[in-house]
Amino acid sequence: MRITALSGGIGGARFLRGLLHVLGPDDEVVVVGNTADDIWLFGLKVCPDLDTVMYTLGSGIDDVRGWGRLDESWHAKEELAAYGVEPTWFGLGDRDLATHIVRTQMLQAGYPLSDVTAALCSRWFGDLRSPVRLLPMSDDRVETHVVVPRDGVDTAIHFQEYWVRLQAAPALRDVVVVGLDSSAPAPGVLEAIAGCDVLLVPPSNPVVSVGTVLGVPGVGEAVRATSAPVVGLSPVVGGAAVRGMAGPLLRHLGVEVSAAGVGAHYGARSEGGVLDGWLVDESDADAVAALRGTGLVTRATPLLMPDVASAAQMAAAALDLAATLPGRTDP
Amino acid sequence: MRITALSGGIGGARFLRGLLHVLGPDDEVVVVGNTADDIWLFGLKVCPDLDTVMYTLGSGIDDVRGWGRLDESWHAKEELAAYGVEPTWFGLGDRDLATHIVRTQMLQAGYPLSDVTAALCSRWFGDLRSPVRLLPMSDDRVETHVVVPRDGVDTAIHFQEYWVRLQAAPALRDVVVVGLDSSAPAPGVLEAIAGCDVLLVPPSNPVVSVGTVLGVPGVGEAVRATSAPVVGLSPVVGGAAVRGMAGPLLRHLGVEVSAAGVGAHYGARSEGGVLDGWLVDESDADAVAALRGTGLVTRATPLLMPDVASAAQMAAAALDLAATLPGRTDP
Repeated sequence: MRITALSGGIGGARFLRGLLHVLGPDDEVVVVGNTADDIWLFGLKVCPDLDTVMYTLGSGIDDVRGWGRLDESWHAKEELAAYGVEPTWFGLGDRDLATHIVRTQMLQAGYPLSDVTAALCSRWFGDLRSPVRLLPMSDDRVETHVVVPRDGVDTAIHFQEYWVRLQAAPALRDVVVVGLDSSAPAPGVLEAIAGCDVLLVPPSNPVVSVGTVLGVPGVGEAVRATSAPVVGLSPVVGGAAVRGMAGPLLRHLGVEVSAAGVGAHYGARSEGGVLDGWLVDESDADAVAALRGTGLVTRATPLLMPDVASAAQMAAAALDLAATLPGRTDP
Repeated sequence: MRITALSGGIGGARFLRGLLHVLGPDDEVVVVGNTADDIWLFGLKVCPDLDTVMYTLGSGIDDVRGWGRLDESWHAKEELAAYGVEPTWFGLGDRDLATHIVRTQMLQAGYPLSDVTAALCSRWFGDLRSPVRLLPMSDDRVETHVVVPRDGVDTAIHFQEYWVRLQAAPALRDVVVVGLDSSAPAPGVLEAIAGCDVLLVPPSNPVVSVGTVLGVPGVGEAVRATSAPVVGLSPVVGGAAVRGMAGPLLRHLGVEVSAAGVGAHYGARSEGGVLDGWLVDESDADAVAALRGTGLVTRATPLLMPDVASAAQMAAAALDLAATLPGRTDP
């Protein structure tokens, strides 16, 4: 089976690790990763979502923190702070730094991010049960900025500063994804969406992760057009985003912070949306009724991922749902 | 007293730390550091000798190793090797990495190395007993390469590879200091040599450390012309370089690997050389007689630096010798 997934960071990565547990060597996975969180720090190109997927699938992740490297140290970060160099709030570990150094060198040598990502993944993905390719959504620079009040003045800051330093606390005036409109899908992205047997939308942030992937010109259209069934999993459980801070971003788009609200936001492909099936947590079973009539086939199933086994069950549930869906045939 | 010193890495740095123990707050020290060992690694500018001086004087050095940072970890280096990225032989610590990252960013922003070095030192030199300025010998890129046989073919390699990876073992066919002839002294270098009360040449490598500093056009001339007395300290004790591997480099220049040989190589200013006084180790007292008649005022004194106190005694001995020398008056 050929499975393509559109993924953000922690939630998507954990789901994908579960997915690999229910697949075999004849299955193929393509992950289209969000790159709108990417940031240049200290002259180094950091791709938080790509790295979280890469480290999680490659068994290099710190599973407690959910991001960054296992057995990590923070000496370079301490020293940068001791030199008085900003920013001090970004979690740049010593092991992680090597990834950014290699990436930056390859980018500066002229390789596109997709080639660089493939080179980095060749270290991490060699022993996976199924072949996995991680593609950046675009080789072009796309960066999410948000507008928040700072000293009484609305100020645009990088999404990472809003998310990591400010913990999504300031009032959100606007979200601007710089470069998105003029970006192009990375090589292989449209083909992976058009040519897969199942397209999955893991429980990632609908606005700044999946939303930005879908916003790359051509990607949303490819999702709407693919003959594969498209199944999403709700990142909102019990009225709050599982990973915490997506609420303000959803509200900014006028989306109710609920499993039904996010499902309706994505919408059914039969009605011009991007999904055919939608999995909500068993505690959000009311969403099944709420979404009846929208065209989305909604099922309730456990959607928390305390361990790999539960993520594998979620993946199995998503594939089960996909198997019941016809996908889209040309009208 | 205004003291200027021409320094390489470990030997020079340890001597200078001793010097600071015999100086007071009214004394001023300018260190002109060798930059011909500098190397670009992983897209980062590494200045081994400047950093060794900076860390040693600023109490950040690993004193057992003699280079790199105290309480260092090597995680980024491990990961770079795991990615298969070369070179793997350079000792790039996680704390040390921060220095190279800050330096590289400032250089890429357009600042000259001398400004960058001053910025880095502002962190390390704030609490020193005497004001110290560390100047790179030049803001221009100068790199020592050596020619050694590799697979039967004479091959030019960066000095760091010869020194660190190959431990100076291969036959040395040639030494080429790329960029030296067209380099210019960094701002303040010539003034620090012309305007000091004592000019010191610490026990650094006479070929690839002091030799390259003296080779920057204008520097050797300034040393020959300064009115300050010039005192050097032998890096060779008992017929071998204290820090080990300088022998092949000296022999390549036809210099005998002995305290007398190096003294004669530097030569007396009265005879067109660069020194007035020369300190040799007490075990090399025969050099005093051997150098009689060369114009060099040679004294024997303990020249090993097992601790700061012994380095301080060496510095005191160098200043004592300088006090007996007339320096140079315009002929």
